[in-house]
Amino acid sequence: MDYRTETTVHVPGRDDIVAASERIAPFVRRTPVLETEAGAFGIDLPLTLKLELLQVTGSFKPRGAFNRMLTAEVGGAGVVAASGGNFGLAVGYAARELGHRAEIFVPSTSPEAKIDRVRATGADLRVIEGLYDDASLAARDRLAETGAVWMHPYDQLEVVAAQGTIGRELSQQAPDAETVLVAVGGGGLVGGIAAWYAGDARVVAVEPATSACLRAAFDAGHPVEIDVEGIAVDSLGPRRAGDIAFEIARRHLDRVVTVSDDAIRDAQRAIWRELHLLAEPGGAATLAALMTGAYRPSDAERMVVLLCGANGDPAPVVD
Amino acid sequence: MDYRTETTVHVPGRDDIVAASERIAPFVRRTPVLETEAGAFGIDLPLTLKLELLQVTGSFKPRGAFNRMLTAEVGGAGVVAASGGNFGLAVGYAARELGHRAEIFVPSTSPEAKIDRVRATGADLRVIEGLYDDASLAARDRLAETGAVWMHPYDQLEVVAAQGTIGRELSQQAPDAETVLVAVGGGGLVGGIAAWYAGDARVVAVEPATSACLRAAFDAGHPVEIDVEGIAVDSLGPRRAGDIAFEIARRHLDRVVTVSDDAIRDAQRAIWRELHLLAEPGGAATLAALMTGAYRPSDAERMVVLLCGANGDPAPVVD
Repeated sequence: MDYRTETTVHVPGRDDIVAASERIAPFVRRTPVLETEAGAFGIDLPLTLKLELLQVTGSFKPRGAFNRMLTAEVGGAGVVAASGGNFGLAVGYAARELGHRAEIFVPSTSPEAKIDRVRATGADLRVIEGLYDDASLAARDRLAETGAVWMHPYDQLEVVAAQGTIGRELSQQAPDAETVLVAVGGGGLVGGIAAWYAGDARVVAVEPATSACLRAAFDAGHPVEIDVEGIAVDSLGPRRAGDIAFEIARRHLDRVVTVSDDAIRDAQRAIWRELHLLAEPGGAATLAALMTGAYRPSDAERMVVLLCGANGDPAPVVD
Repeated sequence: MDYRTETTVHVPGRDDIVAASERIAPFVRRTPVLETEAGAFGIDLPLTLKLELLQVTGSFKPRGAFNRMLTAEVGGAGVVAASGGNFGLAVGYAARELGHRAEIFVPSTSPEAKIDRVRATGADLRVIEGLYDDASLAARDRLAETGAVWMHPYDQLEVVAAQGTIGRELSQQAPDAETVLVAVGGGGLVGGIAAWYAGDARVVAVEPATSACLRAAFDAGHPVEIDVEGIAVDSLGPRRAGDIAFEIARRHLDRVVTVSDDAIRDAQRAIWRELHLLAEPGGAATLAALMTGAYRPSDAERMVVLLCGANGDPAPVVD
């Protein structure tokens, strides 16, 4: 089914993003940028790193989770989500801060450590045998029973608008930016940021070669289901790009580039050596695109590299 | 010998710090601040964290090293320093960037990993049997032979002025700050920052209880030699506070507080869990002072916590 032939996809505009910024400001961190000098990470250009991995819960996800909860009518049944990763953690955290009940469906295949962190937010956890899709189906069933508010990890207008607040911050923190590198899972993050810039800076999407659903959507002309695997699959591994993200990407994205798992690991290690900061694979993919030349900037191109998540396994990175 | 009865100690003023800022700006990072919300780190106040541990080489030390080299007449004999830690790394880095020769005397008791990092800057390393004092004596002998420029880790005007550039940045980044917590080794850092604020904000010095040379200087009325030990001894462990730092501290420091090794370790772990960032023991002592109540802020006190170094052993911190 090609959704776009049947329905108009609404995409957020700058006013939606400004409104989201103001709404979520009391609850999330305005993450800082760090300017690094030419030579850092072996790259011959100064870079502006947006340190979104210092966000509460260790990823950008709370921006969307808060905006969704603050704009929905959340009743006694609370909110429901499916995720054993960054999104589950963000929903649990936001629900606790706002005093809502949260039921979070987690696939039994999620790492125990991640499940424990989601549980520690106080959310009601439902561990479902199987993979993400099984947890997601169980969550949808529960939703139908209870009338709770459904939290989609990326394909909701309020979520995409809120991830775009990173673009707004960057316009203030790095007003001369020419190019912004953004990692893609389902596309909520890159969609929001591309919606903010709307062509005022090049927004370049970076996907792991092993989970490239946005590239696949461009190839097919619309979002399609793909198989996903690889080291970043827990954060960048949705099987299908969001309709909202794809619509924005069609209008405003400069291009999609892909990086290998090995390149992502090298970028994680480079971030560790240079900054003593753990970036998860999905959080390091953007730097990998520069380190490998998957994106080749011009001589003095003013580059912003978004580091969007920190909740990785330190073992293969830290030394 | 009480130096202050014999000589006048010159201390840097704001104009020295402004000049140092402009001089070193092309070579060091303007490190960002992160505002955290009440509840983070188990502390009931929002905090402003100055992330100086993201500085080049992983500590604040390059500020002073660059300023010293940029104001001295460095000839063919280059510069000489004694340090197997952050200062040695900073001197090696600065010398390479400025095209100077650097000879760095390192005690054989320094961890191999740190010695390797200093060597990787391209400095000529002299590993001296024994402890820091042995390396320092050997360095002084060499200095007399060669006429190289001596790099003191903390007790030189240009060094203290340059560490004060952190205070100047904070005045811009956190203009409402009421209190700034700063760790003390020999006092160059806290001296520079207290010289910048000169009473406009409370500057509070934090020392490990096991290496409290500034506290000892206040007790004695002048800097004295003490025994030092403990987990932060490699970065905060000089045996004697600097004369410049003590003179500034006498005039402008609010107080000295001390923290235990266990409290420092707890603070390192809290920083890791909350930010996925490795702070070395000396870099986490300030947060330890808040977490333990060694410094108790008032209800809405606007606190800046300086995190000044990252070059620690991750093993006891990362999980």
